[in-house]
Amino acid sequence: MVKDIIVFRYGHRIVRDFRVTTHVCLVARALKASKIIIGGLQDNELEQNINRINLLWGGDFKVEFVENWWSILKEYKRLGYSLVHLTMYGEESHKRLKNIIKKDKILVVIGSQKVPREIYELSDYNISIGNQPHSEIGALAIFLSKLIKDKQMYSDFKNAKIKILPSKLNKNILKLDKNSAK
Amino acid sequence: MVKDIIVFRYGHRIVRDFRVTTHVCLVARALKASKIIIGGLQDNELEQNINRINLLWGGDFKVEFVENWWSILKEYKRLGYSLVHLTMYGEESHKRLKNIIKKDKILVVIGSQKVPREIYELSDYNISIGNQPHSEIGALAIFLSKLIKDKQMYSDFKNAKIKILPSKLNKNILKLDKNSAK
Repeated sequence: MVKDIIVFRYGHRIVRDFRVTTHVCLVARALKASKIIIGGLQDNELEQNINRINLLWGGDFKVEFVENWWSILKEYKRLGYSLVHLTMYGEESHKRLKNIIKKDKILVVIGSQKVPREIYELSDYNISIGNQPHSEIGALAIFLSKLIKDKQMYSDFKNAKIKILPSKLNKNILKLDKNSAK
Repeated sequence: MVKDIIVFRYGHRIVRDFRVTTHVCLVARALKASKIIIGGLQDNELEQNINRINLLWGGDFKVEFVENWWSILKEYKRLGYSLVHLTMYGEESHKRLKNIIKKDKILVVIGSQKVPREIYELSDYNISIGNQPHSEIGALAIFLSKLIKDKQMYSDFKNAKIKILPSKLNKNILKLDKNSAK
């Protein structure tokens, strides 16, 4: 069973990529990744947005920006993380998932701009979520959803100030006081 | 087994939403929806982008813009489509999926801006893909991936001019001549 999931996003441009990278962060956080590493320019607004979500909704999902992404990827590999690069050119994911979910620690790599050859070569797996032009946000979401059990999507986040009470029809938000929050 | 999937996106603003709605379209197309209906302003550039993808990669995924979305939703409901609205406030999806995948025809509703109350009430299901702040692109991708078998993500698209040959390491694109293309 996977114990730690980190997402690495290759490429981020201030302003232009703000919304798309925000979507990537939300997917990673909601699906229990511990951290996203963004290989691109430091974007304080994006980081503050995600930190505000943590403060209200809980958990300690982290956002990091790195310029020297190559040494970071190699460092995580050295630490025992399996590098799984999601690319439309890769192998069919269902043929590799059985192996991948046995790993303890996974670093998922997704691109935005054209991904350099070195990432294909450093990765332990280059897999596709369908061999069609795709959204990297969608591909990441499907891949992460396969690593965790459906129920985990509904598990509590630590230190949340609010949580949703699932409802057939209504928007039910429960305010949690500090003492009752896990 | 689901025979037809249509995606309805509530809200689209020219320029501002271009990239995010494009991601939504790519997810819908890659995961075998037949059509996306966008309740918002006609965006010719977006439509042309998706049509260019169809021309090269195959299939006949359609993009439609409607202003009077309310009557369209009611019309599809009358035609026997089950309306499934994805919302972070909704019921836990794994509790409802067994019923949903038995449906013949599904219209998946996703929001962008705040979704009006009427959509909650008209929908047959309001379900969440996790009760956390989420990306509607990610939520749509996970939901659609649950409606189809993993292998379907790799099935051929009709009249494709090119297709990918899945590879461990390389970008292999096969050009299909007209006669061999299915």
